[in-house]
Amino acid sequence: MLPAALTQYLRAHRDRHLAELGELLAIPSLAAAGDDGCSAAARWLREHLQRLGLEAETVASAGPPNVLAELHAAEGRPTLLLYGHYDVQPPDPLEAWASPPFTPTVRDGCLYARGASDDKGQLFAQLMAVEAWQRAGGGLPVNLKVFIEGEEEIGSPHLEAFLGDHAGRLAADAAVISDSEFFADDLPSITIGLRGLAYVEVTVRGPSADLHSGVHGGAVRNPADVLAALVAALHDGCGRVTIPGFYDDVLDPSAQEQAAWAQLPFDEQEYAASLGLKDLTGGEAGLPVLHRRWSRPTLDCNGLVGGYTGRGAKTIIPAAATAKLSMRLVPRQQPDKVTDALRSQLQRLCPPGVTLETSVLSSARPVLLAADSPAMRAAQAALAEAFGREPAFIRCGASVPVTELIQRLLKLDAVLMGFGLPSDNLHSPNEHFRLEQLWRGSLAAAAFLKNLAAGGGT
Amino acid sequence: MLPAALTQYLRAHRDRHLAELGELLAIPSLAAAGDDGCSAAARWLREHLQRLGLEAETVASAGPPNVLAELHAAEGRPTLLLYGHYDVQPPDPLEAWASPPFTPTVRDGCLYARGASDDKGQLFAQLMAVEAWQRAGGGLPVNLKVFIEGEEEIGSPHLEAFLGDHAGRLAADAAVISDSEFFADDLPSITIGLRGLAYVEVTVRGPSADLHSGVHGGAVRNPADVLAALVAALHDGCGRVTIPGFYDDVLDPSAQEQAAWAQLPFDEQEYAASLGLKDLTGGEAGLPVLHRRWSRPTLDCNGLVGGYTGRGAKTIIPAAATAKLSMRLVPRQQPDKVTDALRSQLQRLCPPGVTLETSVLSSARPVLLAADSPAMRAAQAALAEAFGREPAFIRCGASVPVTELIQRLLKLDAVLMGFGLPSDNLHSPNEHFRLEQLWRGSLAAAAFLKNLAAGGGT
Repeated sequence: MLPAALTQYLRAHRDRHLAELGELLAIPSLAAAGDDGCSAAARWLREHLQRLGLEAETVASAGPPNVLAELHAAEGRPTLLLYGHYDVQPPDPLEAWASPPFTPTVRDGCLYARGASDDKGQLFAQLMAVEAWQRAGGGLPVNLKVFIEGEEEIGSPHLEAFLGDHAGRLAADAAVISDSEFFADDLPSITIGLRGLAYVEVTVRGPSADLHSGVHGGAVRNPADVLAALVAALHDGCGRVTIPGFYDDVLDPSAQEQAAWAQLPFDEQEYAASLGLKDLTGGEAGLPVLHRRWSRPTLDCNGLVGGYTGRGAKTIIPAAATAKLSMRLVPRQQPDKVTDALRSQLQRLCPPGVTLETSVLSSARPVLLAADSPAMRAAQAALAEAFGREPAFIRCGASVPVTELIQRLLKLDAVLMGFGLPSDNLHSPNEHFRLEQLWRGSLAAAAFLKNLAAGGGT
Repeated sequence: MLPAALTQYLRAHRDRHLAELGELLAIPSLAAAGDDGCSAAARWLREHLQRLGLEAETVASAGPPNVLAELHAAEGRPTLLLYGHYDVQPPDPLEAWASPPFTPTVRDGCLYARGASDDKGQLFAQLMAVEAWQRAGGGLPVNLKVFIEGEEEIGSPHLEAFLGDHAGRLAADAAVISDSEFFADDLPSITIGLRGLAYVEVTVRGPSADLHSGVHGGAVRNPADVLAALVAALHDGCGRVTIPGFYDDVLDPSAQEQAAWAQLPFDEQEYAASLGLKDLTGGEAGLPVLHRRWSRPTLDCNGLVGGYTGRGAKTIIPAAATAKLSMRLVPRQQPDKVTDALRSQLQRLCPPGVTLETSVLSSARPVLLAADSPAMRAAQAALAEAFGREPAFIRCGASVPVTELIQRLLKLDAVLMGFGLPSDNLHSPNEHFRLEQLWRGSLAAAAFLKNLAAGGGT
């Protein structure tokens, strides 16, 4: 149990904490929009960390500045690396917001602002816990390092290099990332698996210019038709990806993990309806929806374009056509290997009369975290204590590259202990964070520090 | 043989004719650009026809005005309907023209201007012949009706209605259309077959908005993947269209016609190179290129678009994807029947989890003209006399809807006797008409009138 003094401290300072988080949320820190807001947010965080008693600085990078901070509590205690990001998604479309995205507003028990949940609010819950230990708990029970980046929402293009360059300085025993969601509103969750990514652009080129499809149709191989055939050939009739070897390295989830997923409160019809769909027929036939989203690799065409796309009819054979294809990868699959297999398959399938160009636009490795590490047990017990319910171990079909990088480059046990809810409108207008999640999240973060100091769950 | 007086007249008036054609070419009569240039060109033609002794008027339509004219020569003579169009293709890109498109300029024996060949120059060759008969031949040997439209280059959207409304006034025994090309520079040609058209737009719709392809990939059917699969499924591995019944009504060219095509001066490698290609692998495997372009139906994807098409990577499942599909049809195929078969096949192939919308954007029937009609024999002999070489009977893979409409609505024997050359840069910068083609074309047109009056070839 968390010392009562901490709980009381966090309860007593809720208004001030809300006001401070409001200051941070009022800063439009868009990594996509250039540096001004990002620098301001980084400066605010540095000063706030200094107020909490940490040594803190902003460190310039090729992108927005990173915030690094450290507090050495005592020899022999475990060292925790705390990760967050201060950059936010663009707020468009502005007219869809009930209150302006950078004017934090409380309504119906929720704090509305861009970044309220993703990730300033979740990060601030962690900082509230640090403050409570410092001011009311006799000091932090662990040694703490803080790393806050400013370009997560644009894919963290400089993160791998930065972590590589600062691996020594960021050395720790465990890492906690608060940038994830509960599975359902009342079900605290720990995300232990993330899919990786391999993103390839394919262009098929034919004649040197668009041609009259009446005069030349039947003589000239049509690049748009070839592109369609190539994209279509990557799946079979059962939704399986046909790239040779694609599934070779796939690690199936354990029977225990699968059994746990079957117990999750998941209503397929409700989920389908929330997307405007009647049924969920994507992916591999015969597998449960959560398996298809979490533990099976997929290939999706993210966009395609070629020839005439305006109103009405134009009778041409396009000179070229392009598709964007991305694969989500699951544990043991390797982005480079899968990308090579895709490119080889496309070349093999490409007919004469056209040429093929492929380029790799993005890649990230899949992640699977051990559910029984000391950090994981510490988070499990902390969430149970703060939210009154045993957390679920879940996965997410998306990629959060920092998780894999922390694991691979810094060799830390990481835990994704997030406080967001599925209804927070992440990346959408009217993003918000439930105040109860902020407060209980700070309790969970405080308990996590105590549990980690004690070697795991207590 | 043409009376010597006509030949002499046409030779003597070449400079004035060139000046008059220059006046017509200087008028920027773009159907796509609104009415000013079109009205001016129609007025110029009306006045010119009146100078030649015809009763002429411009007739308003829902589009640009049509020019109608008539000259009754004598009872008992055949009546000919002469068709042309005064509208021209847009001249863009202007910077690619060596002389301005609406400043007619003679260089190297050619007249350069937009419309010089398509179709003002070819039409004017016909009018030169009318003038020669009127001024130097003792009057026209046939009764003549003239119909000149002003929206051929935008697909003649009001033509079918106009011809239907004016069928009585346009009644004749035969029609001549001078809006086509020689097969090669020194090979006069009569086009006896044109492909038809059926143009369909297909949209596949899935979720109500673009979705995160990581979070939802594997659960949600991807509309871009479905579109690709639908488009791909319309051809088999040998380039044949797989729509059930697609080839049922196809009329094969006669053995005689096929033998004639084999004799045409056609170099596949030269043709491929002119399109920027190494080989011609479109259409049905195993058939000669001219058959694939002229006598076999085809299906081409003219454009496709869906999802993210900008620079770089965006990981979405698109809410929708659209393709434009057009089929070129050959004699005995019916656009409505083929369109219905395509729509049914797409519906049949469409998987659950998405919805399909199709709309018909355009259609035209194929045309095959009898090569032995009196008008055809008259043209054959006229071209041989004027150009000194027996004309070839060829087809064209494109559609010229007026041909089929004249045949179907006015029930006339039509002949496509054109004087353009493959090197005229139709629809491109630096369009031109060889002066020798203008002059010899007028001789051919004059001989055609004589031959037609005599009941065919003489």
